[in-house]
Amino acid sequence: MSLRLYDLAGADAERPFSPYCWRIRMALAHKQLPVETIPWRFTEKDAIARSGQARVPVLVDDDRWIADSWEIANYLEEAYPKRPTLFGGSAARALTRVYSTLGDMLVADIFRFIALDVFHHVHNKDREYFRTSREQRVGMTLEALVGDRDSRLAWFRQELAPLRHTLKAQHFFGGERPLYADYAVFGPFQWARCTSPFPLLAADDPIASWRQRMLDAFGGLAGKSPGYDLIPVK
Amino acid sequence: MSLRLYDLAGADAERPFSPYCWRIRMALAHKQLPVETIPWRFTEKDAIARSGQARVPVLVDDDRWIADSWEIANYLEEAYPKRPTLFGGSAARALTRVYSTLGDMLVADIFRFIALDVFHHVHNKDREYFRTSREQRVGMTLEALVGDRDSRLAWFRQELAPLRHTLKAQHFFGGERPLYADYAVFGPFQWARCTSPFPLLAADDPIASWRQRMLDAFGGLAGKSPGYDLIPVK
Repeated sequence: MSLRLYDLAGADAERPFSPYCWRIRMALAHKQLPVETIPWRFTEKDAIARSGQARVPVLVDDDRWIADSWEIANYLEEAYPKRPTLFGGSAARALTRVYSTLGDMLVADIFRFIALDVFHHVHNKDREYFRTSREQRVGMTLEALVGDRDSRLAWFRQELAPLRHTLKAQHFFGGERPLYADYAVFGPFQWARCTSPFPLLAADDPIASWRQRMLDAFGGLAGKSPGYDLIPVK
Repeated sequence: MSLRLYDLAGADAERPFSPYCWRIRMALAHKQLPVETIPWRFTEKDAIARSGQARVPVLVDDDRWIADSWEIANYLEEAYPKRPTLFGGSAARALTRVYSTLGDMLVADIFRFIALDVFHHVHNKDREYFRTSREQRVGMTLEALVGDRDSRLAWFRQELAPLRHTLKAQHFFGGERPLYADYAVFGPFQWARCTSPFPLLAADDPIASWRQRMLDAFGGLAGKSPGYDLIPVK
């Protein structure tokens, strides 16, 4: 076993910020698997060509290359069955998929708040690629996408109601302990924390309390990584 | 064991339509537990007073009264552990809660389309109560709430994206077989089918295919119950 993770980095190589890579960083810690992380920039497509696609996370386990956070999580569960389970059984694995999808949609929702902040952290050599590809995807400039973000904050917080109601009743989506479902949803929030001071969550939001528990997990793996202070403002 | 379920009925006692009661009807079938259903109308609060609250579903197991669909599902899982599991384990049970919440929110979203259709099916003696209580809750008349429902359909379908993406990849939220997560989300769709001909889903929507599988489950328990033909229109 020799695990390597290609992990998105920006101008600061010590500030990993990809929402999808953070899922896998947390999953690897959950599995108690040591990993060598390789800072990677958007335009370094050649470095991960053997994965058959052009995005991170990419995990390399000896000579096996796996891409896509959901695929990697499933690979880890199957390849390392004696390590703590990421899903909690086969039914739980099926039930987890919706969290992965909810997390993916959170990325799109959060991007409308932090697009310019992310751009600020992207490596110089990636900036043109980042701006062009993202503006093409959303059909407008990053500035227009973000617009008057304060005016959309109430709507965004309202959209989180299903997560909030669940976290009012239990510590983690996985119950008493976090599971991959938690990492799938946490990744986007950690992405925001690493790149933007914008207060997405109110201080008294149960999601903010859960986020703090996630930041503290695994000896503060996520919380000690460079990011903005989260002093949520109402 | 003698199970009785107080189940919402309308003018037609043979057309149960509560989204929350349907969750429990499906859960009882899943658990292979026979049940006597008692048609109940909104204003018959006295009949279920022993449950300590005023809504259905209410399950009576010998002399034990249990209310609230999530509480009932948990009761059934604990009281009948040798019957097929509703959740799929303890992690899966925790992960299921978000489906219950998503289902609850679906009720609110769908009500904006079918409020007048539901009203049409409510028993005469319940009509004033139903209209007054619902209009108070939403802060407008039922007619204003429904408004131009066609204009909101694209938005509603877009909101279902997390469910759709999951059901593109697997037959049920629970995987190869339905679990309580499926019943929690199906209840609101069955409520709509029982009361309204309005085509909430497009024919080629993976959610529509899943709904059909749910209607067919347990010998067509839900599909054979009186409701509108679902010939989804694009």
